[in-house]
Amino acid sequence: MIADLKELHILTGSDEGAQRLAWTETWDQARAWLRGKLAELPVEVEVDPAGNIWATLPGASPRALLMGSHIDSVPNGGWLDGCLGVAAGLEVLRRFSGQGRPPVTIRLVAWADEEGTQFGHSLFTSSAVAGDLDLDELREATDRDGSRLVDVLGRWGLDLERVGEAAGQLQNAAAYLELHIEQGPLLENLDLPLAAVVGALGVERHTIRFTGQTAHAGSTPMSMRRDALVGAARLALEIREIANRHAGVCTMGSLVTRPGIVTAVAGQCDCTLDQRHLDKAALAAMLADAQAASWQIAAEERVDVAWKRLYQIEPVSFTPALIELCAAAVQEISGVDQRMPSGPLHDAVAMARTGLPTVMMFVQSLRGLSHTREEDTREEHLQLAVRALDRLADKTVDWILREP
Amino acid sequence: MIADLKELHILTGSDEGAQRLAWTETWDQARAWLRGKLAELPVEVEVDPAGNIWATLPGASPRALLMGSHIDSVPNGGWLDGCLGVAAGLEVLRRFSGQGRPPVTIRLVAWADEEGTQFGHSLFTSSAVAGDLDLDELREATDRDGSRLVDVLGRWGLDLERVGEAAGQLQNAAAYLELHIEQGPLLENLDLPLAAVVGALGVERHTIRFTGQTAHAGSTPMSMRRDALVGAARLALEIREIANRHAGVCTMGSLVTRPGIVTAVAGQCDCTLDQRHLDKAALAAMLADAQAASWQIAAEERVDVAWKRLYQIEPVSFTPALIELCAAAVQEISGVDQRMPSGPLHDAVAMARTGLPTVMMFVQSLRGLSHTREEDTREEHLQLAVRALDRLADKTVDWILREP
Repeated sequence: MIADLKELHILTGSDEGAQRLAWTETWDQARAWLRGKLAELPVEVEVDPAGNIWATLPGASPRALLMGSHIDSVPNGGWLDGCLGVAAGLEVLRRFSGQGRPPVTIRLVAWADEEGTQFGHSLFTSSAVAGDLDLDELREATDRDGSRLVDVLGRWGLDLERVGEAAGQLQNAAAYLELHIEQGPLLENLDLPLAAVVGALGVERHTIRFTGQTAHAGSTPMSMRRDALVGAARLALEIREIANRHAGVCTMGSLVTRPGIVTAVAGQCDCTLDQRHLDKAALAAMLADAQAASWQIAAEERVDVAWKRLYQIEPVSFTPALIELCAAAVQEISGVDQRMPSGPLHDAVAMARTGLPTVMMFVQSLRGLSHTREEDTREEHLQLAVRALDRLADKTVDWILREP
Repeated sequence: MIADLKELHILTGSDEGAQRLAWTETWDQARAWLRGKLAELPVEVEVDPAGNIWATLPGASPRALLMGSHIDSVPNGGWLDGCLGVAAGLEVLRRFSGQGRPPVTIRLVAWADEEGTQFGHSLFTSSAVAGDLDLDELREATDRDGSRLVDVLGRWGLDLERVGEAAGQLQNAAAYLELHIEQGPLLENLDLPLAAVVGALGVERHTIRFTGQTAHAGSTPMSMRRDALVGAARLALEIREIANRHAGVCTMGSLVTRPGIVTAVAGQCDCTLDQRHLDKAALAAMLADAQAASWQIAAEERVDVAWKRLYQIEPVSFTPALIELCAAAVQEISGVDQRMPSGPLHDAVAMARTGLPTVMMFVQSLRGLSHTREEDTREEHLQLAVRALDRLADKTVDWILREP
């Protein structure tokens, strides 16, 4: 598997990192590379109407174990984000292929467009399979250069009006497994290689505008100021308390001051707030607490505050029975039953939303870095990860056979 | 005087405000307008080697009372900033001219370039008269379009190498008086029209860079973050405490986050700090306190902090005897002995630095607005202001006669 990943990186990466941006020639080279690998196995390969590649090893039962991840990357991305799950699934598929006809059908999927880099729709092609796309919105979608999604898909022989037909791939699906790098610092900090992922955090994302009064830095006494930056600064500190109180995460990642000059009190300050929690009620409480804090701060500072929602997605919990199997596989391979939620979104979230039994496994990321060429994971951890996924696949096959 | 000011505004303003940007045709129209007004009086008019216009009403003594302010404005400026002091001085000069030969010489100066809008040197032409210019720096100065100061001066018949000769204007100077709008909200807030200005605040101006670690907003637990914005936000609040503790002013006017996206903890944050105080030791203490606070915050937040000085100027105190005369004039005209420091810099600061006895008077600004076409002062306050300046001029003439 590691040799496969290195081969793919040489083929589709540059000095700046991975370049498998969806719907580009380099991305298609990665797909062709995968099809070449699959051609060596006794599997049927097809491309669904959303551009996802599926490889099927027929089993005694048509009920299918699905494994996979995304083949696309962000520009200047890492060598593991997405394609690790594809290559690990390929390795497990190889192992099953060498053991004769499996008791259930084993399928590998390489999702075409998870990152949504060009058209802004994360999980685009797994959402197509999940039957969860808003075509009205997508018909208007364009990239930065003004190219329309519908035209870009057409160049790859795909019809936006028919991507929903990819949902047929879930017929007979019994479970979905996805291995991914953590993209965060938790496992490295705990000095652990692996974790079972219990779900994906829900997200509330807002812009918040504080409006005070621009004033001369030299001639305006402190007591007479209505300083928009002070409002935002107080909220930046308050959201940390809120996150800790609810055991979630809150981030103010952007803050812009206007007029934004050294000699003037800021009359306006636009900041962003990203809040995430695995529990829906706790997420709502974090938002309510932040809003209440902003209103109190605004009143105390004699500034105005206005909120505008950018994005919202509910938390998803993965399937308890599969979480137990995944945690057992992680413990057997690494010695520790480690469980954690995912902060970032993954294709597994789209699968879980359909009701398909789903679980993910994380492997440690070095320094928590992702979406950069500096993203990396130790090879010994990659070895543990593919072994743990392999073991989870066996456990899941047994579980599928036990399920009615 | 008010009619003069309105005439000048029609001549040199647009719908966007005053346009008397130094070294432009519109600015020269204002100068020509002033020369026209001076031609009606029994005064000698000259332009010094820095472009400042001087009108002299010879008195029994060559010792001279100087009054004035700047004729230039920022782009889209207000109708009073600078030219109020010129027009008020003109009005007082008219009054003296109608009373025969005064006991001391009375002079009006219209400073050519106070704002430093194009070449970044505030108080440029009064500093020339004060003998306080760094020619090495000015020889290299260019405006945004790349035009060199030396060439721009040449177009107006001036030689940068000779602007220092303007210092000859201070021969026989005995006192300098300047009336200016407050450009701040204090007098309006106190419901007072006028104040004697006791000095100008010293300024410490820095950029401060907090460096933490960019991290994914979803996958990075709160406890593991090194959030540069949190460092800056804590300092933004701390400087307010520092300002209040020392009775000065501290402003964080600009704050820039990097990468500055909603989904990432800010790895870097650049902010500005402007600190002002009338007392040199207190100003130094405010700076030391802010630096110490930033270091403690950085240690607690596990981020780095680095300071870089942008600008520094020491406080200036005006002349105690003239402050008393000015406060008396203010009290006689407005009923209240109000005194305050100036936050912004003025040409009077350049004069005071030479040791020339100097004082300023402020008149109320509406809503504290300045450097915008919305800058305004009530006409009844303008009337009180010119009457108070006139009275101060008489008191100062008496004081000059009493001084050895």
